[in-house]
Amino acid sequence: MYLEKINGSEDVKKLSMEELHALAGEMREALFHRLTHTGGHFGPNFGVVEMTIAMHYVFNSPVDKFVFDVSHQTYPHKMLTGRAYGCLDENRFHEISGYSEPSESDHDFFTVGHTSTSVSLATGLAKGRDVTGGTENIIAVIGDGSLSGGEALEGLDYAGEMKSNLIIVINDNEQSIAEVHGGLYKNLTELRNTNGKAENNLFRAMGLDYIYEEDGNNIEKLIALFEKVKDIDHPIAVHIHTQKGKGYAPAEENREAWHWCMPFDRTTGQPTVTFAGEDYSTLTEDLILSKMKKDPSVVFVTAAVPSNVGFPKANREKAGDQYIDVGIAEEQAVAMCSGIAKNGGKPIFGTNATFIQRTYDQISQDVCINKSPVTMIMNYTSVLGLNDVTHLGIYTIAMLGNIPELVYLAPTCKEEYLAMLDWSIEQQEHPVVISIPGNGVHAAKYPVASDYSQINKYQVCKKGDTVAVLALGDFFQLGEEAVSEIEKQTGRQVTLINPRYASGLDLELLEDLKKDHSVVVTLEDGILEGGFGQRVAAYYGASDMKVQNFGLKKEFYDRYDAAKLMEENHLTAGQIAEDVKNLLDD
Amino acid sequence: MYLEKINGSEDVKKLSMEELHALAGEMREALFHRLTHTGGHFGPNFGVVEMTIAMHYVFNSPVDKFVFDVSHQTYPHKMLTGRAYGCLDENRFHEISGYSEPSESDHDFFTVGHTSTSVSLATGLAKGRDVTGGTENIIAVIGDGSLSGGEALEGLDYAGEMKSNLIIVINDNEQSIAEVHGGLYKNLTELRNTNGKAENNLFRAMGLDYIYEEDGNNIEKLIALFEKVKDIDHPIAVHIHTQKGKGYAPAEENREAWHWCMPFDRTTGQPTVTFAGEDYSTLTEDLILSKMKKDPSVVFVTAAVPSNVGFPKANREKAGDQYIDVGIAEEQAVAMCSGIAKNGGKPIFGTNATFIQRTYDQISQDVCINKSPVTMIMNYTSVLGLNDVTHLGIYTIAMLGNIPELVYLAPTCKEEYLAMLDWSIEQQEHPVVISIPGNGVHAAKYPVASDYSQINKYQVCKKGDTVAVLALGDFFQLGEEAVSEIEKQTGRQVTLINPRYASGLDLELLEDLKKDHSVVVTLEDGILEGGFGQRVAAYYGASDMKVQNFGLKKEFYDRYDAAKLMEENHLTAGQIAEDVKNLLDD
Repeated sequence: MYLEKINGSEDVKKLSMEELHALAGEMREALFHRLTHTGGHFGPNFGVVEMTIAMHYVFNSPVDKFVFDVSHQTYPHKMLTGRAYGCLDENRFHEISGYSEPSESDHDFFTVGHTSTSVSLATGLAKGRDVTGGTENIIAVIGDGSLSGGEALEGLDYAGEMKSNLIIVINDNEQSIAEVHGGLYKNLTELRNTNGKAENNLFRAMGLDYIYEEDGNNIEKLIALFEKVKDIDHPIAVHIHTQKGKGYAPAEENREAWHWCMPFDRTTGQPTVTFAGEDYSTLTEDLILSKMKKDPSVVFVTAAVPSNVGFPKANREKAGDQYIDVGIAEEQAVAMCSGIAKNGGKPIFGTNATFIQRTYDQISQDVCINKSPVTMIMNYTSVLGLNDVTHLGIYTIAMLGNIPELVYLAPTCKEEYLAMLDWSIEQQEHPVVISIPGNGVHAAKYPVASDYSQINKYQVCKKGDTVAVLALGDFFQLGEEAVSEIEKQTGRQVTLINPRYASGLDLELLEDLKKDHSVVVTLEDGILEGGFGQRVAAYYGASDMKVQNFGLKKEFYDRYDAAKLMEENHLTAGQIAEDVKNLLDD
Repeated sequence: MYLEKINGSEDVKKLSMEELHALAGEMREALFHRLTHTGGHFGPNFGVVEMTIAMHYVFNSPVDKFVFDVSHQTYPHKMLTGRAYGCLDENRFHEISGYSEPSESDHDFFTVGHTSTSVSLATGLAKGRDVTGGTENIIAVIGDGSLSGGEALEGLDYAGEMKSNLIIVINDNEQSIAEVHGGLYKNLTELRNTNGKAENNLFRAMGLDYIYEEDGNNIEKLIALFEKVKDIDHPIAVHIHTQKGKGYAPAEENREAWHWCMPFDRTTGQPTVTFAGEDYSTLTEDLILSKMKKDPSVVFVTAAVPSNVGFPKANREKAGDQYIDVGIAEEQAVAMCSGIAKNGGKPIFGTNATFIQRTYDQISQDVCINKSPVTMIMNYTSVLGLNDVTHLGIYTIAMLGNIPELVYLAPTCKEEYLAMLDWSIEQQEHPVVISIPGNGVHAAKYPVASDYSQINKYQVCKKGDTVAVLALGDFFQLGEEAVSEIEKQTGRQVTLINPRYASGLDLELLEDLKKDHSVVVTLEDGILEGGFGQRVAAYYGASDMKVQNFGLKKEFYDRYDAAKLMEENHLTAGQIAEDVKNLLDD
């Protein structure tokens, strides 16, 4: 086996062409080994095996520096830089992340996970090199899907006026996560169809030099290509045409389904893990599709992650023109929603919480200042959700909860989520963001309102005295448990409140609690700093009320064990009860 | 006078060509009348007089809908839609804003002020029209400078796959605020030089239809052009070449200086208002230029607003390759800084606070997760700064203060600002953001540290007891006044603390205050929600300490009187003392 002996570019260079081909085969086997067990990004990795080999053959990593966009295609790169164990050895799978990670290797320069960043980061490496007298090659790799993102386009444009070495590899596999969207993809098609010869050329229009290689899975041709651009004295776009999912028929045939996979059986292509029961994706799609049927002005907008919030292919077809995928372009998505709302439509934007931060300015300026009635639903806001440091949703309350005019709804169960979503789509007064519960689908135990227009009106679910627990969103169930535990330990009846709104205070209710409560506990599924609970604490700051906020400490967490992290942050019912008891005893 | 009789498109249409020319002259006179008195955006408005007349002549506003990018070029549009008084009548200047504003007129659809948004907003209006059965024209206007912004490029790309009416007017005056930057401008030049015939065409590469008009200040030609594209059934880029500042020689000759002007004398072109004394812009440029001289790895990055933070033309020339203007492209700027820092450079990004929200994702992902030692300096964070609702900096602490790993420094005076900036540029551990004081240049009254590496270490400026005032950043002087006032009213010695760090708590000091203090007051120049003070309140939530936070209520404020707004938010020294006295009396 060649793979096990490779620790970097210098080892790749020693291999003959025949050996490189064998190496590619070994690398795909290693990918199968890991991905059948752990799941993960399939298509992106299988498509760039040859490209990665050729890059390491020609360039001299880590002196020459590679920056991979999203970096969900870096298993081949990791394998060639001393980390093959992460794909070969089941016991060591956990030692490598699914993204580039400097703490693992000097061959990685950035912890990344969001799209469209590689060109900009690489322009910075190039400038850093130039001002410190370096001479190395800087190579950015970016997929065609990522090109529609504002940061990537800004990066290409700026690169177009730089005057020193920068090699931008466009890995064009004719696919984003779902199908590509945007006018620029017509130009990519034209370029592919003309073997890169078309006069009209997005990259040249951005001021870049340009070269094309049709056979992007051919090691020899890629080596020749990279040899040609190595040590070039100006920026160049190196456009290569690859096959996403190359080497596995099901993935080549269904590129969307195999962008990311669950653990699977290689023979059948079927996942070996299944989830039963209801999920919020299905609930969301059912509600929105039924509204779309009745009302042609209801429009669902995604920025390239349709399936995460209820729009797999079949639903997209049902929705027709009421479904919009703007490509990886969250800024466009949110600003467009504001326009739709201002011209009589009912827009719903859905995405993962971690991506909503890519459009902070548009939420504030284009939507909230304009009070556009846009509905934004966010998946994975919870500490229980995605746990890669680049994909955490636990900063969302602090990020969005303090933007004026934005109504941030935090539903506690299925019925409340659906009622909030329904209300939000129909109302015409407020920009609304709704966090999709991340702790499984719970049924309502308390009455669920259908009208949320009385902004910041909390719901008292259970009236007690002395201690009140304000349990926000999907920490409501934890709040229920904590209430039971406190009651058990103190013998008192505890008040349980569903705040419903993460973005404001129910001043009347908070004032009222002063009458017969001395301790207020807040729970929220996110960082404490800038969050919901600190607002409550500030409200009571000058009073005798004792306030204890429960949530997570402001920090970047990476691939954590959620139960352990919760415990470290005093987020078990027992710990909360204990803390409250101490407060009462004070 | 024709202008006074015009209340909308229908009145413009009645005029003969000769009368339209006279109207253009009247409109320029009206612009002179307003701008010589109030100052404001000069070049953008003078350049689009003919375009605006032709738009109203051909289209039927407000049924046909215009969306102006930035909307700093909308005085001509305002004049033609019943708001000429805002330029003709000195007593009514204040009745119109410098940007498009729906509350003024049905002819305005969005309150905007940030760049690069018009295309995205217009795609939304177009989609809203399509799903509600409308047939009107949607017209976006965008300047060449704004094209480099990610949102604009995302918008153009998405527009390139739309299938219904959308007219995108590219107002190309060969200028951003300063000179344009980015590779795409080479393509614009090529298009202008070939009368729009060049084969390589950015807009076509984005999937758009395209048409060019060289004579963008010629009413007849523009009318013919717009007639051609009116009611078109697909998106088209209408590229027109205009003269920025048209009609005033000094502005035609120095487009950067006349992008925005102070009140001025028309004959001499000289401002009639001058500011004496030190300013932070000069202080910043002096420090950075002197560091650049000694260290070639120090790099200053701007996103098209160089002069706001110390880089007028003369300094740009001095800085040479150590100065980078990425164009209007904040995402590129911040990500590039991360790359520069990772490859040995010392990057400083400077911009207005309101624009930093355009790069939240890059600050969090590209910089903070990677702990890249990037220095970001922000102007206009203060309630005392820019007061258009689209340009407020008062949300900055809440926005950035809760991002993990980001050290947010809030200097209280000149010496401290310079020391913090110096320290930040040289250190290699932290991403740092520094707010430039917005309350004038104050000299240090207390010792100023040179080393800020002990993160979150507050400075006790004056030790008293019972009451402690934590006065953050440029509210420090207000804190000093409040302390005097409290002392006067209570006869006690009050503790005065300079927190220095807006992003974290000095737990040791806060704990220590419990010994001999019963009231803690926080002051911050920003909204309370999600800010500095609420963190302090939460810290003391379960203790006996009384905490009162002073700052602004979370709201969008527009063209406010700062003194009045401060008073409404209990932000005078007298009010603060009064509130503290009430607390002590409780």
